[in-house]
Amino acid sequence: MKKKDPKALHIQKGVVSPSSINPNLSKKRWKRKQRSVEEYVKGIKEGNRVVLSQAITLIESQRSSHQELAEQIIEQCLPFAVPSIRIGITGTPGVGKSTFIEAFGQEIVNQGHKLAVLAIDPSSQVNQGSILGDKTRMQELSVHPSVFIRPSPAGDSLGGVARKTRESIALCEAAGYDVILVETVGVGQSEVAVHSMVDFFLLLLLPNSGDELQGIKRGIMEMADLIAINKADGNALNSAKIARKQCANALHLFPPKTSGWIAQSKICSALTKVGIPEIWESIQQYNQQTTQNGYYESHRAAQAEYWLHESIVYQLKERFFKHPHIQEKLHEIEGQVKEGSLSPFKGSELLLKLFFDK
Amino acid sequence: MKKKDPKALHIQKGVVSPSSINPNLSKKRWKRKQRSVEEYVKGIKEGNRVVLSQAITLIESQRSSHQELAEQIIEQCLPFAVPSIRIGITGTPGVGKSTFIEAFGQEIVNQGHKLAVLAIDPSSQVNQGSILGDKTRMQELSVHPSVFIRPSPAGDSLGGVARKTRESIALCEAAGYDVILVETVGVGQSEVAVHSMVDFFLLLLLPNSGDELQGIKRGIMEMADLIAINKADGNALNSAKIARKQCANALHLFPPKTSGWIAQSKICSALTKVGIPEIWESIQQYNQQTTQNGYYESHRAAQAEYWLHESIVYQLKERFFKHPHIQEKLHEIEGQVKEGSLSPFKGSELLLKLFFDK
Repeated sequence: MKKKDPKALHIQKGVVSPSSINPNLSKKRWKRKQRSVEEYVKGIKEGNRVVLSQAITLIESQRSSHQELAEQIIEQCLPFAVPSIRIGITGTPGVGKSTFIEAFGQEIVNQGHKLAVLAIDPSSQVNQGSILGDKTRMQELSVHPSVFIRPSPAGDSLGGVARKTRESIALCEAAGYDVILVETVGVGQSEVAVHSMVDFFLLLLLPNSGDELQGIKRGIMEMADLIAINKADGNALNSAKIARKQCANALHLFPPKTSGWIAQSKICSALTKVGIPEIWESIQQYNQQTTQNGYYESHRAAQAEYWLHESIVYQLKERFFKHPHIQEKLHEIEGQVKEGSLSPFKGSELLLKLFFDK
Repeated sequence: MKKKDPKALHIQKGVVSPSSINPNLSKKRWKRKQRSVEEYVKGIKEGNRVVLSQAITLIESQRSSHQELAEQIIEQCLPFAVPSIRIGITGTPGVGKSTFIEAFGQEIVNQGHKLAVLAIDPSSQVNQGSILGDKTRMQELSVHPSVFIRPSPAGDSLGGVARKTRESIALCEAAGYDVILVETVGVGQSEVAVHSMVDFFLLLLLPNSGDELQGIKRGIMEMADLIAINKADGNALNSAKIARKQCANALHLFPPKTSGWIAQSKICSALTKVGIPEIWESIQQYNQQTTQNGYYESHRAAQAEYWLHESIVYQLKERFFKHPHIQEKLHEIEGQVKEGSLSPFKGSELLLKLFFDK
């Protein structure tokens, strides 16, 4: 393969709008690429990664015309979603998530699957540099024809990012990606959001012991279907084995999962590939077991219902706080509430009256 | 004091509406007690516990006429709130919370304070029995003239209960209660809600070691300004001291608090009263320190702003989900979303259109 300018590679893959790279040159090219809903849907169904990527850009756009377009695309794509397994991956920075995904992803595509990797990280201010960085960290995977990698959109709230990731999953599945990895950082609330959109939750830890030291919250451990001690190679192999045992003990203390699945702990190395096939095997077992006991389906239904409600509340808030009358008055009311001359409840009453009456 | 029928005691204190005790007899008596906003406010300002209790019953009522009345009362009471310290108390069942509050409350009122004890526990289905139970558990405190005890309202969501507790605090402060205890159960989300309405957060633990065994989540420990190892008496004294040391170590691992306060751990016994005065002393130190460094005021302002936003979202949801058109259509849309024929986002779009267009 001819070596390419990394920027050109991005334009080709449509990961970012070309205008963000060269505003003058590319505005026209971008415009030329605006497609009808039907063209988007057709492109996605055919597995065209450029079209898929541009459709996700529409999902991520703040412009309401883009969002309307995105909604129509999603709606028409839904019937074409392939059966999939959605996997959440988390771990603190330094755990080697990118190299793990590189190795784990190879294992998956080598078995004939199509893999989409999405990231959810509202804290990251993804700029051009870090997109390129992300790509370089998963060098082999990013150029594999069966793989689609999409970094997290920048500058948005967790609710916003989560919603967009959830919608992006739908498009990836319509494009034939039957394994979806949703990557997150493992230090905060994003794990809960990810947990609400995946089937299987994988936690990566380092060979050194103690969840406190790794900054992993107990709640995140409790969500894990599998804990993998990464970097179990060289001198760290023994301590990885000890850490695995500790995790196994910790997992025992949590209440049994409604899925019927018993959480596992394993060691692995993205470097030597040891343990990587076993993790994929585990996930397939999980898939089989939960499909048979009906949990897979009921869980997906419950997640969809959860997102319906989340989406309603999100939209209600959006409409409320972006309403011109509210924007005009909110700051003043907030001030009165903060200084104590108005109760929060009366303040909200006044604003709601303004919103609904006008 | 003449011994009274416990039921009569409740009618007198207005803890529950008399009609829930004897529907026939008391409906009239209850009616007769309906007051104007001005009468309520006057009664509360005078520290009349019967009127205070009835006003809180209005806050807890599902009827919109009651809620409107309650809002007016709260609004007019706000300017009369005394400077107060609000303390959240939590711990797993069995930790001896009621006996602790009994002893701790005595310490507080003996120093000339007026004490209100509110409970927040959405899981409890408070019926007459358990109200009586609660009262009996804090026997001395409940009859003290400077004390007002109010159990959690039953059958409501956490959001609902939290909001009502927050509003009740405002009335108690207008009635001259300068120490507010908000009690919760220590196993779930309610602690976060309580944390958002108190100045100081007190966690009770048992002398046996290990937070896992006590079912206390790490996040709850992290919120604590003081951890008290209760039941530090008799044979348990030594293990209490060990547990205290463990807690002190655990507290060190958490990031420093924005209040500038360094979380403490102490031992205490509600039985022997050992350590009880020291806990109250700590809280006073906290109060002094955070008043001086400005945290007290800025934190209260931030909490009020938080509750303004919470209240807006709560009301938006209430109006949405109780709207007749939504109630008519929601179930059908949910069904389509769950079976996957409609995306959660399109589903919410349809419902929002219905809500705003009609």
